[in-house]
Amino acid sequence: MVSLELIKEISRSSESKIMLLVIDGLGGLPDPQTGKTELETAHTPNLDSLAAKSICGLSELISPGITPGSAPGHLALFGYNPVTLNIGRGALEALGIDFDLEPGDIAARGNFCTIDKNRLITDRRAGRISTEQNARLCQLIDGIEIDRVKVIVRPVKGHRLVVVFRGDGISADLSDSDPQQTGIAPKDVIALSQQASRTASVANKFISRAEVILEEHYPANMVILRGFSQPPKLPNMNEIYKLKPAAIASYPMYRGLAKAVGMEILKTGTAIEDEFETLKSNFKNYDFFFIHIKETDAAGEDGDFNRKVTLIEQFDRELPSLTNLEPDVIVVTSDHSTPALLKGHSWHPVPVLLYSKWCRPDGVKQFSESACIHGGLGRLPAVDIIPLAMANALKLKKFGA
Amino acid sequence: MVSLELIKEISRSSESKIMLLVIDGLGGLPDPQTGKTELETAHTPNLDSLAAKSICGLSELISPGITPGSAPGHLALFGYNPVTLNIGRGALEALGIDFDLEPGDIAARGNFCTIDKNRLITDRRAGRISTEQNARLCQLIDGIEIDRVKVIVRPVKGHRLVVVFRGDGISADLSDSDPQQTGIAPKDVIALSQQASRTASVANKFISRAEVILEEHYPANMVILRGFSQPPKLPNMNEIYKLKPAAIASYPMYRGLAKAVGMEILKTGTAIEDEFETLKSNFKNYDFFFIHIKETDAAGEDGDFNRKVTLIEQFDRELPSLTNLEPDVIVVTSDHSTPALLKGHSWHPVPVLLYSKWCRPDGVKQFSESACIHGGLGRLPAVDIIPLAMANALKLKKFGA
Repeated sequence: MVSLELIKEISRSSESKIMLLVIDGLGGLPDPQTGKTELETAHTPNLDSLAAKSICGLSELISPGITPGSAPGHLALFGYNPVTLNIGRGALEALGIDFDLEPGDIAARGNFCTIDKNRLITDRRAGRISTEQNARLCQLIDGIEIDRVKVIVRPVKGHRLVVVFRGDGISADLSDSDPQQTGIAPKDVIALSQQASRTASVANKFISRAEVILEEHYPANMVILRGFSQPPKLPNMNEIYKLKPAAIASYPMYRGLAKAVGMEILKTGTAIEDEFETLKSNFKNYDFFFIHIKETDAAGEDGDFNRKVTLIEQFDRELPSLTNLEPDVIVVTSDHSTPALLKGHSWHPVPVLLYSKWCRPDGVKQFSESACIHGGLGRLPAVDIIPLAMANALKLKKFGA
Repeated sequence: MVSLELIKEISRSSESKIMLLVIDGLGGLPDPQTGKTELETAHTPNLDSLAAKSICGLSELISPGITPGSAPGHLALFGYNPVTLNIGRGALEALGIDFDLEPGDIAARGNFCTIDKNRLITDRRAGRISTEQNARLCQLIDGIEIDRVKVIVRPVKGHRLVVVFRGDGISADLSDSDPQQTGIAPKDVIALSQQASRTASVANKFISRAEVILEEHYPANMVILRGFSQPPKLPNMNEIYKLKPAAIASYPMYRGLAKAVGMEILKTGTAIEDEFETLKSNFKNYDFFFIHIKETDAAGEDGDFNRKVTLIEQFDRELPSLTNLEPDVIVVTSDHSTPALLKGHSWHPVPVLLYSKWCRPDGVKQFSESACIHGGLGRLPAVDIIPLAMANALKLKKFGA
């Protein structure tokens, strides 16, 4: 990839419109019976006819063999180096619940956990308490102020929570209190640099206060924190690409990532049709749309091959409502593979198609892992997708004379 | 690409000969009627039979989506990083008229323009005066000496000119006087660093003197300057590759670029046959030949699909006169695409074939964008072409023990 400085220098605003459609966890592995992946098993006439007019390939999100988390996968799709611009765990967890991090905040991921009378951890997940119980407990320890630092506590799912420290002159240079194992006591938070010593003291005082408050709430009688981090400082898509970008995503983390790169977040529902409807009704207001489809990844994580197939078919059925809008550029791809056979994210590159009037189609007639091997994009780094989409939208000037 | 230091370390001189045949703007887009690009439409039996003995691919000049100017495109083909080694606009314009820049010179691109009696620019191109008129006006303002700096003025085409400042201790760290718009006055040249203040003053005095001299020459009654730059300092091909390289190009800018990397410039005519004849008569004297064919790009820029087809066919007809010389390595490729449909340079990767006795052919039987997708070179960065040609000429030693 070329530098963002170069892209910024040659990018220009124009009327043309780009759609980036991300089917989370799309890439798969073949069913041993049929020899076909989830995408190859699905009946996808609309994706296939779009592929026939497109240039196709397999996209490498990070580097061969590297399995991307959702955040690096998306940063790459937004055109940013996912290794150098990685987002801290705490900040990511905060983005994931639509929490508005302010500059200077320090966020940590937390677990409610169980400790015995010797303060040794017996269950790192507090018996997997319900999200409702979690929310009630968070209220008990939310809003404490220590040494002029406000500590904000918010529930995530099950036993997970986010703790945000807000105040002047605090630092994320802190060790975890979560020892990541049972049978030992929670660790003290340690300052990893001089300027973090006050923040370490605040964090430890908060944990002690929480311990006292939670004493009666067995099995959730303690909190452990990890991944202290600052809000991400990411280049703004408007500044780099001169785009007016909008994001449509039903899951908060993807909205958070999109917001962090300067996209406007459009309110939408949870179904694919809802998301597409949101795009349709906002089509004239923006020139770049990121749509995120979550459920395919969840099906892959559950090892549910057939559900993933069904969801891909559902996406395909709805696709004409977007192509009928006649955007100048359509990209369909994913942030990583989630093969049902592996029940998790994997390193396999993902299929990508890019349609535009100027794309120079490559003879690929099917949108699938096997067919995309023979596409004109070859094995394309994901960070190059946005520059290529920009070029196809005639939004990049020539480099050099 | 590996570093030039590494290439320099492992390169060795030998008798074997390499031909790099650059068909400017070769890559295209399919005619909507036929589905075939210019190259695919052309009848090219000689290129096709050469492709069948070669290894083929699509070459990415800069990075996916980036449309190369001619200079970065050629720097990449010569094996140099086209982003870090970019050439200043003024210097490039000087190369483009075969002007011999000396070390320490500062070159600027200029326009004759029209100003009204309030010194506001009314036409940035002085009514597009003829090249002949331009040449006469340049003589009037050429050779002025200011503060021990000689100012050399040379005509380019139409309203364009080159202004070269020659003297000790001058700097290119200068802002443009060209405001790039009408309705406002030309700007003063401003020193962008301490050491450029004297040069800024010289440039402003030159512009004032020119304004007085040109007063009576409406519509060309002013000059505006931009892109002040030093002569490019590029690695020498003889030093890096230990080649004795020669360039055959009918257009001055390509000769200038070739000269800047240490090639010897061979005198030639304007037709493809002239250029090939020049190579034949110099074949024994050099071990690397760069041939540049310009007219294909011009046809693409004009949007003349058929003329581009005809020119490619003409190249193909003449090709046996080069292959009959039996060079050890032949590369046929381009510095960028210029699809007739886009009437300009584009970002699409260009077809490349590399023939040698040792190339390991890949089954591609046709030299075309579509066929090259399936070639053994895949999607190859253009900077890797020269190392690959060197290897095929057995001019690179093993790296490491």
